[in-house]
Amino acid sequence: MDSRDTRAQAATVGVLLIGDEILSGSIKDKNSDYIIQQFSPLGYDVREIRVIPDDRKRIGGAARELSEEYEIVISSGGVGPTHDDITFEGIAQGFDVQLVESQRIMRFLHERYGERMHDDLKRMALIPDGADVLLEEIGSPWPVVRYRNIYILPGLPRAFEDKIDRICASLTPKGAFLGGQVFLTADESDYVTWLNSFQLRHPDLSVGSYPYWDQPEYRTRITVRGRDDSDVSRAMDELTAFVTDRNWLVRAERY
Amino acid sequence: MDSRDTRAQAATVGVLLIGDEILSGSIKDKNSDYIIQQFSPLGYDVREIRVIPDDRKRIGGAARELSEEYEIVISSGGVGPTHDDITFEGIAQGFDVQLVESQRIMRFLHERYGERMHDDLKRMALIPDGADVLLEEIGSPWPVVRYRNIYILPGLPRAFEDKIDRICASLTPKGAFLGGQVFLTADESDYVTWLNSFQLRHPDLSVGSYPYWDQPEYRTRITVRGRDDSDVSRAMDELTAFVTDRNWLVRAERY
Repeated sequence: MDSRDTRAQAATVGVLLIGDEILSGSIKDKNSDYIIQQFSPLGYDVREIRVIPDDRKRIGGAARELSEEYEIVISSGGVGPTHDDITFEGIAQGFDVQLVESQRIMRFLHERYGERMHDDLKRMALIPDGADVLLEEIGSPWPVVRYRNIYILPGLPRAFEDKIDRICASLTPKGAFLGGQVFLTADESDYVTWLNSFQLRHPDLSVGSYPYWDQPEYRTRITVRGRDDSDVSRAMDELTAFVTDRNWLVRAERY
Repeated sequence: MDSRDTRAQAATVGVLLIGDEILSGSIKDKNSDYIIQQFSPLGYDVREIRVIPDDRKRIGGAARELSEEYEIVISSGGVGPTHDDITFEGIAQGFDVQLVESQRIMRFLHERYGERMHDDLKRMALIPDGADVLLEEIGSPWPVVRYRNIYILPGLPRAFEDKIDRICASLTPKGAFLGGQVFLTADESDYVTWLNSFQLRHPDLSVGSYPYWDQPEYRTRITVRGRDDSDVSRAMDELTAFVTDRNWLVRAERY
């Protein structure tokens, strides 16, 4: 692919959040927001997020589906030493491979824990056969396990974010996403016909429309998102002129 | 099933959030939290959340998978009049049925919009063949479409929450979930062996363990969740005694 053709380079990301604690409301997910914030400026598009329980079969099935569907998969959670940390097992099961003891992780654990090392911690070194262990390669202070295109990360936000930063630094940036939005005093029913034709005139852009019930100043928002600056600018000019002519414009923004 | 046997009555919920705007970070999802908060006290267990883009094929595929897997599915988003509102189309495609015009919704739209009714708003009345339209049945001021076990709701949080409240009021409550937790000064590596045996001694409970890096008072949290009060109490007593004996306890809570 020609590195100058940014639009042809859409790179997709799937996210797998593993843990009963998110589904029960005991922990709030912050990690998917962080992925979106870090990957979008690199031109990597988060296309799906799945939250599933600590269940080997579901972990394996979802990891396999996401791995086949998206260029990069980020999993979060279930890589510690306790009984509910079964992400490596689930992924191995999903791809029908064995768990093998990583000598590199074992050395790391012995150095990390020293005298306090014990057998139950070895669980963290049992990874799917064929997985890569990244450490110095991405400058990480703790091993990062990658199986095929799946980065298998811890759920703890600080540790997770550190690893996402390092992974992002190792990726080739694509064309970043650009966007704009207008806030309006109109209802969707007032502009739906025009908006449908607007989207048809701008097939390379993603156009969104959202109602609000709780804002004193505006009732709806129209968004535009794409990778080509002149495409986005042209669409924003047309959109802003349309809503200004009808006296609906509260404000317009580019980013 | 015996209605007094609350543990046998686990009722499962799958959640489908539809919309590019969540995946691009343009809108933050609040609806899945609301589902968890409202369904858990009724004993309905949210078992999976999927966030997918405005894409007919993905909507259909995910809706079908979740419908087969869980007792109730809640979808959020994509039911308005604009070009990006394609949830009904996606679900019809996923179940291989036609879209048909609901006379009940058409009457509603004519009443609602009066003089301002126009052809592009009719899109909101095109629903999957065989879907139910709920209105007076659940006391709703706007139609709620249900296809099989999938409640197809709008994404706008206030409208969404109103419909979730009405749906929850129409469901038979199951045994609610009960829980407890302790906050500790220990590391997971200090108690992993004990915790594994603790989970084995309490197979009907879900036991979780979570590290923290950013709390001055505690370093880990252990959680217990179940449906039987005496099960949860017995486990919490055992857990609290274990951590108190080792001088690790910061605090213990029941809920």
